[in-house]
This record gives sequence, structure tokens and C-alpha cells, in this order.
Amino acid sequence: MSEFVSLPLALAAEQFAKLPGIGMKTAQRLAYHMLNLPENEVKTFAESIVKARESVHLCNCCQNFTEREQCSICSDENRDKNVICVVESPKDVSAFERAGGFDGLYHVLHGLLSPMDGITAEDLKIKELISRLTDVKEVIMATNPTVEGEATAMYLGRIIKPMGIKVTRLAYGLPAGSALEFADDVTLAKALENRNEL
Amino acid sequence: MSEFVSLPLALAAEQFAKLPGIGMKTAQRLAYHMLNLPENEVKTFAESIVKARESVHLCNCCQNFTEREQCSICSDENRDKNVICVVESPKDVSAFERAGGFDGLYHVLHGLLSPMDGITAEDLKIKELISRLTDVKEVIMATNPTVEGEATAMYLGRIIKPMGIKVTRLAYGLPAGSALEFADDVTLAKALENRNEL
Repeated sequence: MSEFVSLPLALAAEQFAKLPGIGMKTAQRLAYHMLNLPENEVKTFAESIVKARESVHLCNCCQNFTEREQCSICSDENRDKNVICVVESPKDVSAFERAGGFDGLYHVLHGLLSPMDGITAEDLKIKELISRLTDVKEVIMATNPTVEGEATAMYLGRIIKPMGIKVTRLAYGLPAGSALEFADDVTLAKALENRNEL
Repeated sequence: MSEFVSLPLALAAEQFAKLPGIGMKTAQRLAYHMLNLPENEVKTFAESIVKARESVHLCNCCQNFTEREQCSICSDENRDKNVICVVESPKDVSAFERAGGFDGLYHVLHGLLSPMDGITAEDLKIKELISRLTDVKEVIMATNPTVEGEATAMYLGRIIKPMGIKVTRLAYGLPAGSALEFADDVTLAKALENRNEL
């Protein structure tokens, strides 16, 4: 950072560079950008981040991030309380809400089982999920289509099915708007296997 | 932003999205990242930005950003005060310092002449440059090799040369590590024109 003439500027750039996906060059550009903003805008930016960190915690029901005791989805009277969609992270909830079409509740695991990385069932919000399952008719496993995602879905399925609850898994298949020729073998095989009647 | 369950989180993401080169998806990712950091790290991040904005201003000599009255380069006794390298922005000073090899002083114009965008000589730090030129032997025009950069270099050259000061321009030519076949016509023509004896 020796090329920086100003120490506070170098420190700000260093902080930006710590963010995921932000390299030194971008960090430098962002730090310079801050100097060109009105002082109150910079303060608003800084405060919004601290505020988010301070006020946001986990929903006491679905474990998603919220600033209230129970998140807006869990406390929404209009949502179907019989269906719970289990996801890895809060980002996945955002993805579903953005896509629309699902009006049940969510449960955020905050991770996936990964014995290689030392992540076991105790590290995930599984206890909290099981304790929610009274009066639930269906649990949708919406973990990522990866080895860890599959393993976690299988593991949870084996616990939840004996409770007399229907457990489903997101469909594998071709992504919309893609081309057959670019699909990988596993996806193509799954798409064929899970073909639907027209 | 309706897909966000938490308002403070949405506000933080919105602030990130205002940064140059950061889209909504990255902003969301960064906001989520903040929630996973220890609270004191988030505060350090926020404070470093506000601190930079509050304490950094323009050097009274070269107009580069600094938190002191005169920047560390201008106040460095070991630098050659006979040569001034004129650049468009503080980023360019960083680039030269990173590359090394220049031990003179800088002058930051904070922009380039661009009549189309209504940027005239009064909008740039040209007055400040002229007033520094006592006892200076050479002024290097290190503006970008663009139309505006060229025009600004020419304009300043016409003012400074009559003062009996040597005015030079950065060399045009092939960038190091590049391939001839990918060079554009202007660059290739300039590289040929400015060829040096081996």
C-alpha cells in the first residue's frame, strides 16, 4: 500500500480489500470514490452497515436474518404454514422470494453437512427445524444440487420422513433458457430420467 | 429489494449498490458478509471510511489527496524538485509510485479539458500548477493517451513552454508483454514512428 500518499486513504482501501470478491485495485477505486462523495453520504453508508450488523439477528422461528424477533415471512398470516422449504443460507430465501411462486415458510440451516470440513449436524440449525415440525404437512429440501446439498437433504429426509411428514426435493433438470448441447452429463441424465408428460 | 426479509439488511445492500462497479447481486452478498463479521470489525470498516473522508483533503502543493497540509511526496526531501509529472487523477500518482522509477514531484489536475462536457481550464488545478513552476526544469505531461488527455497536454504545453521550461510527453508505443498482432493501428504507427536505436 506504499503507493498511497495518504494513510487514512490506504487504511480505507485495505478495509475494502477485505470484502469477498474485492481485489486491491477495486478497493483502491472504492476508497477514492468515497473521497468524492459528500461527507453525509459517506456517513450514511458507514452507519447503514453498522446498523445492519447491530440490529440484525436470527429469526426465532426460521433462523433467517431479521431485525425483529420473528421475521416478516414467519409472522405473515397469509403464508401457508403447512409447507417448509429448507435452504442452506439466507441468500437462498432471497432467491426464492425474488422468483416468487412459493407461499409457504422457510427454514435456514446456515450451512450444509460436510464431514470433510468438520461441519456436523450440531453446527446446523437442525434442532430448530425438527422442533418446528408439528402440524407441518410437507418439507421441501431446497439445498444446492451439490454433494453436500444432496447429503444434507438425504440426512434430513431420513429424520423427518419417520415423523409422518412428506419430504420432497427440488427437481433436477435443464435450466430455463439454456441449450442442450451445453448441459453436463449428470444434468442431462437427470432431465431425461425426470421427464414429464406433455 | 422486497426479497429482503430484514429492512436494515436491505438498506445496507442498497448503500453497497451505490458504489461504482458494484451491482445489486454483489451488494447483497457484501451486506450478508457484514452480518457474518464480528461487530468490531464492521465498526472498524465503517470508521475507516468516515475517517478517510473527514481527514483527507488536497495537498496544498501538488493537489493530491493527503491528510496533512502537504503530502508525503511533496514534503520528501529526497525527491527531485526540478521535475513535475502532471497527471489527471490521484490514481495516476498511485500507478507511478507503484511502478517506481520516478523520483520527481507530481501535480494532480483532477480532470482533463473536455469542452463537450463543459470542463474548461478553470475547473482543473491549472492555476495551482502554474504558480509552482518557479525553479522547475521539466514538466512531464502524463495525462492519458486519449483525445482529452492529448488536448490537455497540448494546452498546458503551450502555456508552460514560453516560460522557458522543458515540456515532455509520455511515450506512445507497444505495451510491455503484448503481441504485435493485437496492437491497434494508431499504437503500431506511433511505435514505428518513435522507434529507438538499439
